[in-house]
Amino acid sequence: MGTVFVIGVGMTPFGKFLKRSVKDLAAEALAAALKDAGLESNELEAAYVSNSFWGMFSGQHSIRGQVMLHPLGIKEIPIINTENACAGASTALNLAYTAIKAGQHDLVLALGAEKISHTDKMLSFRSYASCLDVEEFPNKIEGLIQQVEALPLEIPEGSGAGGGRSIFMDIYALAARWHMSRFGSTQRQLAVISAKNHEHGFLNPFAQYRMKMSVEEVLQDKPIAYPFTRSMCSPVGDGAAAAIVCSERFLAKRGQSRAVEIAASALGTGRERPLEEDHIGQKIAQKAYTAAGVTPEEIDLAEVHDATAFGELLQTEVLGFCAPGEGGLLAESGATRLGGRIPVNVSGGLECRGHPIGASGLAMVHEVVTQLRGEAGPRQVAGARIGLTENGGGFIGTEEAAAAVHIFKI
Amino acid sequence: MGTVFVIGVGMTPFGKFLKRSVKDLAAEALAAALKDAGLESNELEAAYVSNSFWGMFSGQHSIRGQVMLHPLGIKEIPIINTENACAGASTALNLAYTAIKAGQHDLVLALGAEKISHTDKMLSFRSYASCLDVEEFPNKIEGLIQQVEALPLEIPEGSGAGGGRSIFMDIYALAARWHMSRFGSTQRQLAVISAKNHEHGFLNPFAQYRMKMSVEEVLQDKPIAYPFTRSMCSPVGDGAAAAIVCSERFLAKRGQSRAVEIAASALGTGRERPLEEDHIGQKIAQKAYTAAGVTPEEIDLAEVHDATAFGELLQTEVLGFCAPGEGGLLAESGATRLGGRIPVNVSGGLECRGHPIGASGLAMVHEVVTQLRGEAGPRQVAGARIGLTENGGGFIGTEEAAAAVHIFKI
Repeated sequence: MGTVFVIGVGMTPFGKFLKRSVKDLAAEALAAALKDAGLESNELEAAYVSNSFWGMFSGQHSIRGQVMLHPLGIKEIPIINTENACAGASTALNLAYTAIKAGQHDLVLALGAEKISHTDKMLSFRSYASCLDVEEFPNKIEGLIQQVEALPLEIPEGSGAGGGRSIFMDIYALAARWHMSRFGSTQRQLAVISAKNHEHGFLNPFAQYRMKMSVEEVLQDKPIAYPFTRSMCSPVGDGAAAAIVCSERFLAKRGQSRAVEIAASALGTGRERPLEEDHIGQKIAQKAYTAAGVTPEEIDLAEVHDATAFGELLQTEVLGFCAPGEGGLLAESGATRLGGRIPVNVSGGLECRGHPIGASGLAMVHEVVTQLRGEAGPRQVAGARIGLTENGGGFIGTEEAAAAVHIFKI
Repeated sequence: MGTVFVIGVGMTPFGKFLKRSVKDLAAEALAAALKDAGLESNELEAAYVSNSFWGMFSGQHSIRGQVMLHPLGIKEIPIINTENACAGASTALNLAYTAIKAGQHDLVLALGAEKISHTDKMLSFRSYASCLDVEEFPNKIEGLIQQVEALPLEIPEGSGAGGGRSIFMDIYALAARWHMSRFGSTQRQLAVISAKNHEHGFLNPFAQYRMKMSVEEVLQDKPIAYPFTRSMCSPVGDGAAAAIVCSERFLAKRGQSRAVEIAASALGTGRERPLEEDHIGQKIAQKAYTAAGVTPEEIDLAEVHDATAFGELLQTEVLGFCAPGEGGLLAESGATRLGGRIPVNVSGGLECRGHPIGASGLAMVHEVVTQLRGEAGPRQVAGARIGLTENGGGFIGTEEAAAAVHIFKI
């Protein structure tokens, strides 16, 4: 099978754009990706499009990719709509990769576009709840809460017991408390992660939040659900991101000095498990490492799913950047900062670059591809040759309903 | 690249099941497909799941496949949710086929499950409108209506000018009137198609409507939108259908005497066009015929997208079963009946077997696979060796937003 390449990336800045439409955001990301690749839209042979909430917010329940792309002159080609909650855009990339691997196409588009900000804020928050089993999850959360409340962990008064923001923050908070109780991780370590990501986001022109925050400022921010303060949580936001993916054959014919290889594309789904057991993510990561023929030590930078700072802490363990239980220590050591041993979320991560659900995974790809090409300017990871993206989505029990790991090489 | 096979199919009967859930329907179709293949659910390596309206009806906007499959013990494997309006299930099959072709997996599931019937009937009807560009289509339909009203065609009084059922019937009606005006097709020819499909559906235990109707009875039925009466239109309904797809390697290892080859899987998207021009479907069909190495004359039976009887009339032309403009004559000749030269919609088609949007394409596959194995009982097409499914979805301008043609061989 031939190798698969990304030859163009594009994205909108992420943020709250109450007056912009999903179509508008998609058009901007597509135009940027085409320009980056030096291609015209009529050269594309298929499109894989991710969106989760256009139905919920505007009644566009069907054929969302067609509705986005048709006005841009993309007609006749197969357009495949996909949804996998927060991992939708990585799923679109996986489908693009698979189609090239199968020899079905030589040049395809992966696009994610999402609009979540709304004048009715409760509608925005409610969208997250549809990334769970809406019928069953209310029953499951009870058991989880009991499990976590039995832990010998002191919760400071007034530190938040669910902020009304989304049930996701509560689930993450429970998992974080378990980790603190089991491994001695601290709230300060989470603040270190968040402060680091704010520093990174400050350097990224596409980031939703571009303000530095100290560890103390993060700790003093509004409590959401212990141990999280507001700045440890990814914000509600809108945006679009795209990647143009091609075959070895196309690349040989057209040439493109800045092409980045997709060395692995691995997907999986969570199981139901008590908090103590191995994380399914380890299996998916292992599958990706094997496919790419690399070890965690060889990864030069990673964009991981920090829907909360705890997501990043846990994923650095799951991905093998440190031993299980040591994600907090890794962050404190400075290894995950720009300039450290394994820079994580140099884009600012979901916490600062932002997290428009169905677009996020391709924003991760945008960052890694930009870095591997050495085009990241002040946030460039020196000498980066191998990058990784880890993108999770939804919850089944306590694990991501969809999880995706991609490895890129230049 | 290896050949790809269907080694199991299963479906629920289609109908209005107000008290059943999407999960429940999915579980039944999956169990039937696994039983048919002689496999266990834990052998599946990936799942491709189609659904359009679970978000709209029950708030399950995200991770629908995971929510359907997790309670059935399907965990850890990649689950990919797809949506392509009425062609969603064929899109799921295309993704399953592609993953096998790419060598990514050896045994995967394609599943479509949909529930559209609702105590609030207007909600059911409204779901169809979300298979168009919800923002732009109201403008487009005006131009279409003007185009068709200028045609020299007499519309009998009281024959319906839009039945409030769905805008889809209006769009199909406009296209049908254009065809009548351009080629002299008649309302009676449409009634012949519908009566034939009622005869077929009568023989199919999975069909939503199992009652014979004569041509006269079809013509006398309630007018919807001229030239359509109610029985020329597919009904609102619920159901699920599944196919288990495997690689040549898996088949060699496990053996399965009733395996059916997927000889071609072609997808496309409509362009915007005046009614007079070539249909994009011809390109997609040609792509499929070329991939399968067969001609339209070699097809032994076809399941085509008769959302209305006119859909079938047009598709028999588009697929090359007759010359352009002669679809009505072909139907009148009896060639498309069971026992005819090219039996079409032996299952009863969308008109009688039913059309739960995201499940329909795999019900077509269920029929063709059953027929090629010679297991269709009283509706068996004698000696069938090559079958075709054609599945369209949504509208962009006047053409399907998603269109899929699959060719199967035994």
